[in-house]
Amino acid sequence: MENDIFTPQLLPKYPLMVVISGPSGIGKDTVVRLLEKRQNSFHFVVTAASRSPRAGEVDGVDYLFVSKERFREMIDNNELIEYAEVYSEYKGIPRAHVEEALHSGKDVLLRLDVQGAARIRALFPEAVLIFLLPENDEKWLERLQNRHTETEEKLRIRCDAARDELKYLPIFDYAVVNETGKLETTVDIVMSILQTEHSRIHPRKISL
Amino acid sequence: MENDIFTPQLLPKYPLMVVISGPSGIGKDTVVRLLEKRQNSFHFVVTAASRSPRAGEVDGVDYLFVSKERFREMIDNNELIEYAEVYSEYKGIPRAHVEEALHSGKDVLLRLDVQGAARIRALFPEAVLIFLLPENDEKWLERLQNRHTETEEKLRIRCDAARDELKYLPIFDYAVVNETGKLETTVDIVMSILQTEHSRIHPRKISL
Repeated sequence: MENDIFTPQLLPKYPLMVVISGPSGIGKDTVVRLLEKRQNSFHFVVTAASRSPRAGEVDGVDYLFVSKERFREMIDNNELIEYAEVYSEYKGIPRAHVEEALHSGKDVLLRLDVQGAARIRALFPEAVLIFLLPENDEKWLERLQNRHTETEEKLRIRCDAARDELKYLPIFDYAVVNETGKLETTVDIVMSILQTEHSRIHPRKISL
Repeated sequence: MENDIFTPQLLPKYPLMVVISGPSGIGKDTVVRLLEKRQNSFHFVVTAASRSPRAGEVDGVDYLFVSKERFREMIDNNELIEYAEVYSEYKGIPRAHVEEALHSGKDVLLRLDVQGAARIRALFPEAVLIFLLPENDEKWLERLQNRHTETEEKLRIRCDAARDELKYLPIFDYAVVNETGKLETTVDIVMSILQTEHSRIHPRKISL
């Protein structure tokens, strides 16, 4: 009869730029890894870093490990969307990887510390920023202590850092409690958020 | 140690006002019924109507059937949040039911035609408005014809109405395609939207 009422043009689709962030020790890496497993329509953009890999870290998977010299070259050539220098080590987001992902129509997934997420917000107001947080202080301290690397002094520093990081909460879109032992629920909720963002009548549109 | 970093006060919770809408014949009733089954934390507010019940319609479940006289009284007493007169029959949303739901902390669920949804948007800018739509025109016409009540003339009128209703799409928050034979998927997506709305850092807050 018609074929001109309910048309696909009513609902334009754009890839999302999704940032998974939160305080250190909250489990960003694990959540991102599970998200990728659930749905391979994500394009996970690996952060470039000048520091040496820690035990178990794989180059190109966990981080893109480059020399400081190469990193400075990347900065000079405008090869990074954003970068930061922390304790005289660099990390940043390679521009080419993000462009590639967006052009392919895939959602771009970034795992960033809270300060990195804030820089992305400033550059891409339409990014979807998700803050992972623990159910309470006890559970969070348990998480940190389970890493076996935490002294009392280090814990105190982490608590101070977490207080600072929480000041950024208002620039985020969503908060997801990553409850201990309920990782699949966390991933479910993040998947729901992405599904919902793709159902928006006024979609967020990222322009590079 | 602390108990003052990750506190519940970081994430205040408010009940949502959720409107399920869309063109006639799209399946709003079925979706609402399944949503209620999935999660009994909804408070479904039944629309009051002055017309007679159709076959199979249950008073207080599908609609709250009242006389025209009683309806006019409800209007005069400000007992309705909104109402409309269509072809000299009234329908409207009882204020007491919405207040009751919001005070109980439950999400309020409303099933409304597109014009009713538009009135809710004007009254409650923070309501969550979901537009159900068919995958394409063929499927929608099939839906209407399966109701066995449709003549060519009636179909033409419905198509014109749908075109008018689609003009309201921009005032909605989300579009969900209610694909034929995939009702559970539709309900999944609506549930995702509600989960996401409850994960917002800046929650929508309904004030009556």
